[in-house]
Amino acid sequence: MKVNNQRLMELLAEVNQISSDGEGITRLAYTEQEQTALDWFIEKCRQYAIRTHRDAIGNVFGTIGPESGNGILIGSHLDSVRNGGEYDGALGVVAGLEVLITLAESGEPLDRPVTVVAFRGEEANILGGTFGSRAFCGQIQFDDDFIQRLANTPFTLQQVKETAGTEHYSNYLELHIEQGKKLEASSTDIGIVHAIAGIKRLDVTVHGEAAHSGTMGMNERDDALISTAKILLEFERIVKTFGEPNVGTVGELAVHPNLANVVPGQVDFTLEIRGTDIKMMREIADRFSSYASVHHKVTINPNIEKAPSDLSEKLIATTKQVCKETGVDYQVMMSGANHDANSLAAVMDSGLIFIPCLHGISHNPKEYAAPSNIEKGANVLLGSVLKLAAELN
Amino acid sequence: MKVNNQRLMELLAEVNQISSDGEGITRLAYTEQEQTALDWFIEKCRQYAIRTHRDAIGNVFGTIGPESGNGILIGSHLDSVRNGGEYDGALGVVAGLEVLITLAESGEPLDRPVTVVAFRGEEANILGGTFGSRAFCGQIQFDDDFIQRLANTPFTLQQVKETAGTEHYSNYLELHIEQGKKLEASSTDIGIVHAIAGIKRLDVTVHGEAAHSGTMGMNERDDALISTAKILLEFERIVKTFGEPNVGTVGELAVHPNLANVVPGQVDFTLEIRGTDIKMMREIADRFSSYASVHHKVTINPNIEKAPSDLSEKLIATTKQVCKETGVDYQVMMSGANHDANSLAAVMDSGLIFIPCLHGISHNPKEYAAPSNIEKGANVLLGSVLKLAAELN
Repeated sequence: MKVNNQRLMELLAEVNQISSDGEGITRLAYTEQEQTALDWFIEKCRQYAIRTHRDAIGNVFGTIGPESGNGILIGSHLDSVRNGGEYDGALGVVAGLEVLITLAESGEPLDRPVTVVAFRGEEANILGGTFGSRAFCGQIQFDDDFIQRLANTPFTLQQVKETAGTEHYSNYLELHIEQGKKLEASSTDIGIVHAIAGIKRLDVTVHGEAAHSGTMGMNERDDALISTAKILLEFERIVKTFGEPNVGTVGELAVHPNLANVVPGQVDFTLEIRGTDIKMMREIADRFSSYASVHHKVTINPNIEKAPSDLSEKLIATTKQVCKETGVDYQVMMSGANHDANSLAAVMDSGLIFIPCLHGISHNPKEYAAPSNIEKGANVLLGSVLKLAAELN
Repeated sequence: MKVNNQRLMELLAEVNQISSDGEGITRLAYTEQEQTALDWFIEKCRQYAIRTHRDAIGNVFGTIGPESGNGILIGSHLDSVRNGGEYDGALGVVAGLEVLITLAESGEPLDRPVTVVAFRGEEANILGGTFGSRAFCGQIQFDDDFIQRLANTPFTLQQVKETAGTEHYSNYLELHIEQGKKLEASSTDIGIVHAIAGIKRLDVTVHGEAAHSGTMGMNERDDALISTAKILLEFERIVKTFGEPNVGTVGELAVHPNLANVVPGQVDFTLEIRGTDIKMMREIADRFSSYASVHHKVTINPNIEKAPSDLSEKLIATTKQVCKETGVDYQVMMSGANHDANSLAAVMDSGLIFIPCLHGISHNPKEYAAPSNIEKGANVLLGSVLKLAAELN
């Protein structure tokens, strides 16, 4: 059984007609554009006789097969970043829909219900990224901060609480573009994700002495930006020493007082480490902190620390098996980015399947995945669903 | 003949009671605080029977000696930066005032008029730094931009034009704190400035490729901030290769998009070179540009280029002679910062005398010059004035 990739590409093109003005795709969480895309999704399901359901915050589900039983859930999200691409999120939903249509068209009876889901608000938003799937998985912390933020959304507290609803499902599978270059670089068709990276961030302040750029000699100055340059290069070196899949980034940095004629007196930056081994991530942070503290005047404070999340070994094995049987190249890899699969992984066997995207570009109008890769990804997803349905018969 | 340093310190303390609220001294150009300080100066002159005069924009002059003849002008400015120190500017005016009082008290007849001046608006302001002295020296460009800016000041175009008035003077001498660490580091009492540094600035953009910090591996990413770190260290190395008095600074820098979870795609910064040899400054810029262009993806555009300004050899010799005769340690040096002496140097023999300030700190509430150093500086100023008066007898 194979998906109809022409139909899949047409469905993708259709949903991508829904966007705010401007370059690329803009379907921000909780806006009219996201709502229109979810409505389109419901309409498409109905067109193919797929049973639909909206939960209290508007996550949308389309189901085929028996009315009860351990459901298999597949999907992703339909919201996008501002000026994003055509694939991040939408591909996973549309591929899921195509899998259901293919299954329905095959006429073969299903022993387990199979459901395609479009989660809301996966991208960074006022309620936090992956909000729709976290609410579905009952992972929302109802603290004061959340309740305050909720007041600026279309949702009531009651609605968010009612959204928790994973009891009908025992597996989740998501197809997504890699958003990195690893698959492209190794000419591999499929990435089977074994873990979603943890994140450890440090807030770092480098202290120097602000001074007049003309009067303070090169050997007398204490330039916080020059110290920072050394620190950044040493941090990069340390991270590379620990090797893949660890990555370390300084993406946010501010110079003070930030005037052309003043030797920088202070530099603040956020340092980020991602990896799949929290101990190793902490060791990188410690090595960095030791170096910086010994060689420079720094203040280092912990920011967030989010442990890596392991995906289901069972589903990794299932997807591997599908790849092997259909002769598709794959590699087992980490996801450096967060996905709805991360929310689901805590409550059921969950898997995440990557396909390559051009030059790793994502969250960008230039985001691109080749139709041939999309087809392979959708067929691996279909194959995995068929195996799961058969195994748990 | 020696100054009365106790009186000088009292005068300095008096003028420093005039400040806006907040840490340190705030007497911004063209504000009530600057005006009050200039009024205080006039009042002090009158108290010591010094003839006073205000020009059209309010530069204030106090004169002793003959009514006509080649005048000797000494002084500085009374405005300050926001939260500045007690010495930058005010010291030169108060020391000049003390020199006049000492001369007047000595009872010795003067063959040349000696004038102390307090220039307005020396610090960065809407009309540009050293505005008062540039107007006095007839150096204002009356272009559209200037006329537009003038509309936001208390001055009319006519007033600025009438301010040009150097014809009565043939020498200018200014006493100022060094605002650097050279004198302190070499335990030298007096700096005799031979040149005011030129400034050459380049606008630099370093190009990389913005990417998700989690999904782009360390060896696949093109991090504009990591490139910038390498560029900054190489720039520092190049400047040090050329040696003193050249200095090179990157004080202003912006990372794009400046988010903790995005590998920097672009970094913009302003690079500044100061020195006393414009050819060498250009060579530093060229060496930097060659390195950056070969090893990184950069766009480099020229920003300002202001040639260095040589001070009067005659006055350098005069001040040297005074130091030698009175047993005061001195060194001939560059001024990395601009001063009113720079405006005057273009129209008459001008000199600039530095005294050490603690750790080179300036434009800061912590700015400090020891009374013993102030006394030495004021006496060198007095000695130089006496020599000039005698030479041109």
